[in-house]
Amino acid sequence: MKLGSLKSRTSRDGQLAVFDRDLTRLLEVRESVGTLQATLENWDRTAPDLAAIYESLNRDHAMGRPFDWSELAAPLPRAYQWLDGSAYLSHVERVRNARGATMPPSFLEDPLMYQGGSDSFLGARDPIVVQDEAWGIDFEAEVAVITDDVPMGLLADRAAGHIRLLVLVNDISLRNLIPTELAKGFGFLNGKPSSAFSPVAVTPDEMGDRWDGTRLHGQLKVYWNEDLFGTADAGADMHFSFAELISHGAKTRRLQAGTIIGSGTVSNRDLKQGFSCIVEKRVVEIAEKGEAVTAFMRFGDTLRIDMLDRQGRSVFGAIEQTVEPCR
Amino acid sequence: MKLGSLKSRTSRDGQLAVFDRDLTRLLEVRESVGTLQATLENWDRTAPDLAAIYESLNRDHAMGRPFDWSELAAPLPRAYQWLDGSAYLSHVERVRNARGATMPPSFLEDPLMYQGGSDSFLGARDPIVVQDEAWGIDFEAEVAVITDDVPMGLLADRAAGHIRLLVLVNDISLRNLIPTELAKGFGFLNGKPSSAFSPVAVTPDEMGDRWDGTRLHGQLKVYWNEDLFGTADAGADMHFSFAELISHGAKTRRLQAGTIIGSGTVSNRDLKQGFSCIVEKRVVEIAEKGEAVTAFMRFGDTLRIDMLDRQGRSVFGAIEQTVEPCR
Repeated sequence: MKLGSLKSRTSRDGQLAVFDRDLTRLLEVRESVGTLQATLENWDRTAPDLAAIYESLNRDHAMGRPFDWSELAAPLPRAYQWLDGSAYLSHVERVRNARGATMPPSFLEDPLMYQGGSDSFLGARDPIVVQDEAWGIDFEAEVAVITDDVPMGLLADRAAGHIRLLVLVNDISLRNLIPTELAKGFGFLNGKPSSAFSPVAVTPDEMGDRWDGTRLHGQLKVYWNEDLFGTADAGADMHFSFAELISHGAKTRRLQAGTIIGSGTVSNRDLKQGFSCIVEKRVVEIAEKGEAVTAFMRFGDTLRIDMLDRQGRSVFGAIEQTVEPCR
Repeated sequence: MKLGSLKSRTSRDGQLAVFDRDLTRLLEVRESVGTLQATLENWDRTAPDLAAIYESLNRDHAMGRPFDWSELAAPLPRAYQWLDGSAYLSHVERVRNARGATMPPSFLEDPLMYQGGSDSFLGARDPIVVQDEAWGIDFEAEVAVITDDVPMGLLADRAAGHIRLLVLVNDISLRNLIPTELAKGFGFLNGKPSSAFSPVAVTPDEMGDRWDGTRLHGQLKVYWNEDLFGTADAGADMHFSFAELISHGAKTRRLQAGTIIGSGTVSNRDLKQGFSCIVEKRVVEIAEKGEAVTAFMRFGDTLRIDMLDRQGRSVFGAIEQTVEPCR
């Protein structure tokens, strides 16, 4: 099924809605749960009812109502936890090579992951508001999972069952703030403003054989100012599975229901697939030509991230954002 | 006033309660708000009613009910954001010196701050559950503020008015996991399990002249296995004020109401005041004797963090925890 949240004046957690498979109509669910966060906290009790609504919506085209994408908040407009991994090692290797660093062998076994800000996410059509263009505005197209309650110390071979929803992410990054920030040793903060999410989150069963239990397969299409910038397959070179990422996050503490775990920037070893963030292209340019040719985003630039099913329909709805100055 | 949250079977955000000044009685507030998170989201509307209840509780000793400390969750049992600064440079300097690193001059102007896990905090009397004693279990006694909504880019000179509550924190740290984790470059994750909070959060006006608008003055008393371990004054050597820490956190994104911002381990230059974490004592031992003599916490060890008012009464209630193995 496909779930999302309408922006709401009365609830910062939005108003839960079920969408039809083609993303043409939605039905607000005010009874019992009301928010996606509450749904995730009581998944075994809530999911069957929502699945029944979803099936009815798909059968009965008079049910529900049309909507405008701009009505939608992120599926979780805010979350108690956002952990972003870095599971595509071609991305890690390229970015490190650019600053003359090799990848330590431990990176093959111990996932990179950071604790991200989760108090206010952007809806799929919300602008990317930045105070200063000189901060080096970049996107990062990713896939993420949303979990139910995960106990402390859970091993990877038992983690897959805790994945309840899949979603696309634009993990916006301010590249020129990051080197100084990471040099301080405490990870990202100013360099990672609010992330944006696809209009809907979907249950893994929606993906058919594209979901292998711990990885999502399929091209993540990234368009920058209408030009196709990347078509990397999210399943192809994902070194750490989502099960491994969950287990890493839960090593020393439990994860509450509604925890979002990101894949990191989707990246394929095959350069013909392009890129899911600007910095990776710049790094390849430096290696090939001695300097970066592609500049970061400017005010007014647009970005589109989408994933299609085998019939060419958008699975999650598209993330479509414009970069705007902070007023 | 003094606010806290009772553990609740029906709400993961707990049940809001107002406490009397002496922390002998509480009154549950079920109407209109119900949780501290909702209170913070509507502070201007909710605070006057709660303040009136607080005044009545202090006047009328038949009002409210006695309670057991173990009934209490953290004032915010979970939060959308926990940002922990490192405002006491004597702590930063000592810890860096131990690994042969000096403190860069930029550290005097650009605060250290990390994004912490906020999805499940510990109540003041909850055990510290750890899987492996060899991970190097340490405490960090801190002061923190809880804010209302803070706009993006807010400068420090306008940040003080966004501080709604003060609270004590035990930022539990697994020292032997941290070097490897920080070397990866993405900050803390496994090295920082769930933090614990004092039984109640208090409004700044409770502190009288101990609150100067941006810093809290007063000794933070830390007892490890009943022995007094630290008496550092939280105001004495705090290089960055809470206003500066808020502004740093909000540089590139807004902070939602209920954001908790920590001071970092309270530390005084005067070694006679002892320490608010074990690692700092070990570092001084290495400098003085060539090796660390004090070991980290063991299963069964106890910890107590408290701050008294001028009349010798506990302001926030004490954090009292025991270290337990993960079963």
